[in-house]
Amino acid sequence: MGAEFGGFMGQILKVNLSTSKIVKTDLPSEWPRAYVGGVGFGARILYDEVCPWVSPFDPDNRLIFTQGPLSGTFTPTASRYTVVTKSPLTGYFGDASGGGFFPAELKKCGYDAIVLTGRATKPSLLLLSDGSYELRDASAYWGMNAREAERAIVNDLGDKSYKACTIGRAGERLVRFAAIMNDEADRAAARCGVGAVMGSKNLKAIVVKGYKQPKVADANALKNLLVEITNYVKTNKNVVGFTKGGTPGAFTFFYQLGDVPIHNWSSSSFGPSDAYVEKVAYPGGYERILLRNRTCYACPISCRRVSKGIDGLYGVEEGVEGPEYETVASFGPNCGISEPEIIAKANNLCNEYGLDTISAGGVIAFAMECFEKGILSEEDTKGVKLRFGEGEALLDVLRMIGEREGIGNLLAEGVRRAAAAIGKGAEDYAIHVKGLEIAMHDPRAFQGGGVHYACTPTGGRHTEGLSIIKELKTRFSTEGKGKLVKEVEDWDAFVQASGWCLFVVDARGYPSNEHLIKVFNAVTGFNLTLGDAMLLGEKIFNLKKAFNVKHGCSRSEDTLPQRLLTLPTKAGAVVKLNELLPQYYEARRWDAGTSKPTKALLQSLGLNDVATDLWGVDSSALEPKV
Amino acid sequence: MGAEFGGFMGQILKVNLSTSKIVKTDLPSEWPRAYVGGVGFGARILYDEVCPWVSPFDPDNRLIFTQGPLSGTFTPTASRYTVVTKSPLTGYFGDASGGGFFPAELKKCGYDAIVLTGRATKPSLLLLSDGSYELRDASAYWGMNAREAERAIVNDLGDKSYKACTIGRAGERLVRFAAIMNDEADRAAARCGVGAVMGSKNLKAIVVKGYKQPKVADANALKNLLVEITNYVKTNKNVVGFTKGGTPGAFTFFYQLGDVPIHNWSSSSFGPSDAYVEKVAYPGGYERILLRNRTCYACPISCRRVSKGIDGLYGVEEGVEGPEYETVASFGPNCGISEPEIIAKANNLCNEYGLDTISAGGVIAFAMECFEKGILSEEDTKGVKLRFGEGEALLDVLRMIGEREGIGNLLAEGVRRAAAAIGKGAEDYAIHVKGLEIAMHDPRAFQGGGVHYACTPTGGRHTEGLSIIKELKTRFSTEGKGKLVKEVEDWDAFVQASGWCLFVVDARGYPSNEHLIKVFNAVTGFNLTLGDAMLLGEKIFNLKKAFNVKHGCSRSEDTLPQRLLTLPTKAGAVVKLNELLPQYYEARRWDAGTSKPTKALLQSLGLNDVATDLWGVDSSALEPKV
Repeated sequence: MGAEFGGFMGQILKVNLSTSKIVKTDLPSEWPRAYVGGVGFGARILYDEVCPWVSPFDPDNRLIFTQGPLSGTFTPTASRYTVVTKSPLTGYFGDASGGGFFPAELKKCGYDAIVLTGRATKPSLLLLSDGSYELRDASAYWGMNAREAERAIVNDLGDKSYKACTIGRAGERLVRFAAIMNDEADRAAARCGVGAVMGSKNLKAIVVKGYKQPKVADANALKNLLVEITNYVKTNKNVVGFTKGGTPGAFTFFYQLGDVPIHNWSSSSFGPSDAYVEKVAYPGGYERILLRNRTCYACPISCRRVSKGIDGLYGVEEGVEGPEYETVASFGPNCGISEPEIIAKANNLCNEYGLDTISAGGVIAFAMECFEKGILSEEDTKGVKLRFGEGEALLDVLRMIGEREGIGNLLAEGVRRAAAAIGKGAEDYAIHVKGLEIAMHDPRAFQGGGVHYACTPTGGRHTEGLSIIKELKTRFSTEGKGKLVKEVEDWDAFVQASGWCLFVVDARGYPSNEHLIKVFNAVTGFNLTLGDAMLLGEKIFNLKKAFNVKHGCSRSEDTLPQRLLTLPTKAGAVVKLNELLPQYYEARRWDAGTSKPTKALLQSLGLNDVATDLWGVDSSALEPKV
Repeated sequence: MGAEFGGFMGQILKVNLSTSKIVKTDLPSEWPRAYVGGVGFGARILYDEVCPWVSPFDPDNRLIFTQGPLSGTFTPTASRYTVVTKSPLTGYFGDASGGGFFPAELKKCGYDAIVLTGRATKPSLLLLSDGSYELRDASAYWGMNAREAERAIVNDLGDKSYKACTIGRAGERLVRFAAIMNDEADRAAARCGVGAVMGSKNLKAIVVKGYKQPKVADANALKNLLVEITNYVKTNKNVVGFTKGGTPGAFTFFYQLGDVPIHNWSSSSFGPSDAYVEKVAYPGGYERILLRNRTCYACPISCRRVSKGIDGLYGVEEGVEGPEYETVASFGPNCGISEPEIIAKANNLCNEYGLDTISAGGVIAFAMECFEKGILSEEDTKGVKLRFGEGEALLDVLRMIGEREGIGNLLAEGVRRAAAAIGKGAEDYAIHVKGLEIAMHDPRAFQGGGVHYACTPTGGRHTEGLSIIKELKTRFSTEGKGKLVKEVEDWDAFVQASGWCLFVVDARGYPSNEHLIKVFNAVTGFNLTLGDAMLLGEKIFNLKKAFNVKHGCSRSEDTLPQRLLTLPTKAGAVVKLNELLPQYYEARRWDAGTSKPTKALLQSLGLNDVATDLWGVDSSALEPKV
């Protein structure tokens, strides 16, 4: 049930693609208060249903689409859906989140979670329409890229009110960092290889038309808060700047901190002059490709960029989504590219093939360094001169990854596997944590980020609690960072499980954290305090961690690439992980020797079953009953 | 090195199929005394090189061919090779062992272990000849069945002295219980899906011609022992019976114990009259298909069977390997078949496709029960009436499994995954432990076997320490069985790692265990006692277990199918697992709550690094060095 609370739809849809059997079940009534929603529900389901012996591409892996209570309501800045699965990059807990208009439409189909298992015998799509559900043959769309597929499906249905999420050719080919695309491939649930798992299930798309508005417990209170928050967004200097510049507007700020990786993380500056930022940043060169901004459902910030469909830039007829900060950094400085047009083309290629731009840029930067160091030869790349700064080479290799052709077939495995296959010391240039290519914030520029990257369950991630904004003034110090990072992670876990976009946190899209709690309570009818919310976030974070522990992830994987631990930046900094880890484990109440959440912690969070899984049953309970 | 000891070749060959790079390294000098050889070496390599995030079909999984010091020498009954990998059936430690003449030839190529990693870009074979090694294109043999492939390869090489192990079409198609075949597909390293991992690496064959005889430390002593042992084998009543009847000769004995599963383990008898045994047993109906017996390299027992190539029985020109006990039981009573000709055909189909007959029979018996109970329909089976006793239906479905056609594609996943995909309560009929279909000895007929099946690292296995012969007189009692099983497992681990066939244990192919130790010392030049050997066996067993723990296998998987715990046999017996487990964990010094080997145990066995992995580093070592 759970439908008595505002924001929840009260049902879970379980789809077995092997048998084509679809079952609707009630959302367990205790889940809203116990796991918030979204990634919290996804973590609970994944933990319960996917055993350690199940491989990411095994049909028994689950692909879970979840949403928080706020999603689909008029809550500002909360148009997100989350996909949860066992990640084919890491082998551990994986999730990814996407925005746009698809999430609200999905929510209005009436489910808090859709749990897909099995593998369809032929390409299929899941159609949710006006309260009904069915699997359909999608063979006609297999082989299409993501934008083309969504348009063709909606066109064939003859009703423009359908929205869809799809995989492109990269997901079909099990490229391990394939994304799930939505809103005509302009938005993505990108990280952790969720699109590859969708491909492994022979699922091309989920196509939705909603019929049911989520209830709001106190609509008046929400309306008043909405007015207040919208006024704040429209007038606060920081947020207005964000509306104007989007995420790329922060590029210069991060670059000047030494936070933007350059040439596969080998440097934090292009030299004494930082003229580079003017070439790719906004304001600056980025303006050449920018047409206008755009919004997600019910969001007053409108941080999305639309790039110009200038002559031959994309080969499409109109403006498409422009590169975000992560994409600019990933294909720009990290691959040595300074033309915004190349970055925009690379971004659009990723969107069409359905690829995570962070991992794609990371894997190409890795390959460029291997090529420059002679570890990869022109024979390996079939003649492509894969040097830093070679824009056409970058675009060529990106296509090869999407098609799994030539060297692209190797790079499609991600940097960890590619490096292992190449050998010859290539591992030294594979910048990842737990197999996930690291996001474009260099933790040598802020120590807290180092321990977060090292320890967060999904690997090299910037969206599970990056502390950069909170440690600007103390960024080279390790003091107190264990506790700080833990608190940021817990809060972010609560915020994301609720359904918000992370910009309510880092970009301060709300006047205060108290406003978040007020909105959450107005929608759900709960009476949470900030402290309650932190505890729920801690619970969700530990549930993700527990999945990893159960699946074999050990303390030895709580680490960073050697480069970040030993190669100093211009500011002379490396990540002092040996100072950070003990603090962090202590703050988290994780066992220092194994990094396992302690039994006492798990029990105090109400995760008794998890405590038993990880620490064993009480021996006295094992005595035979005579 | 290690070559200073008799029996060891002193080298490891490391083959990266992704890069075609091959490297020879010295065997670490401490390994012979620390890990014996064979599965002991394989366990150490797999533990060190395969991380938990690596999936069985991932290129980073290892496929390790290993041999013990006795293999390839004139030691009686020691012509075995062992293949070690992360199993695609269980997701945990997997190994399989094969006999015949290939093992001795492989050993004479000069390696104690061959470690394969990566995935070849096209079908390949590894050619080891007169001390050289190379990878060759095997595209011409891809699509061939195992026997055909070996003959074609040897024919093309133009030298009949080559021997090979190959995969058939089942391994190419990643049937999860595919075997690796050798001696023209008459012998198999069958269990745990090792052939599927070989297929996932695009490796069709390993083709060998030896050039180097393993040294023996004390050739005179070995010769004297050989004479004594051969005399014993030729005159001892039990062993002579075994030479005459092979493993099928034991069928009646086991059947009368209620040890042979019937109709997918739903019964232990076909009814009041046991006339059935005469139909399939030797002596009895089996004689109709029996041509003669045959030997492995340097074995005086000669337990192998050759079946008649009678008209149309196989479609091959001459006699081929006849079904062993496990195969007779698996396709016979467990599938309700009573015609030896059908069983022999099924056996030969498995050998050609490269399939494990135990798992194949198990999965078909499961499907038959599902069909009879209406869980699978004629629509599912494409018209095949898959009832118990339907011989032609069994052969049809076996072919479909080998080709992954229709229902065969589902059954190719093994009973655990097939049942999960089918749903509708099919799990109740999936007879496996940890995903491995259980061997053909029903533990309701001997309690010790129950706890062995439940706890042995590779799953439902009869070759890692089945205690049946040791508990004949106390078979329905649980008393003392924890300790008994532990001792049998440890001894068997030592025996197999040394290179012996298990028939030196259960069939008593040697006059005494002391004779085994004398032979071991004569070959290696060691001075082991029986106690030393037991400790080494315990170490190997715990190394396999530790791999499982590291890869997420928990105490909850130390269990048996509900049917064996709740459905009484004719003798009124179920497995009393709740009485057995605490005893077993105590004898093993495994933590009762988690089933993890205790830190003290691992340290006492000299596995300090494993102790750290499983129990964490000492916290004091984690303090930052200021």
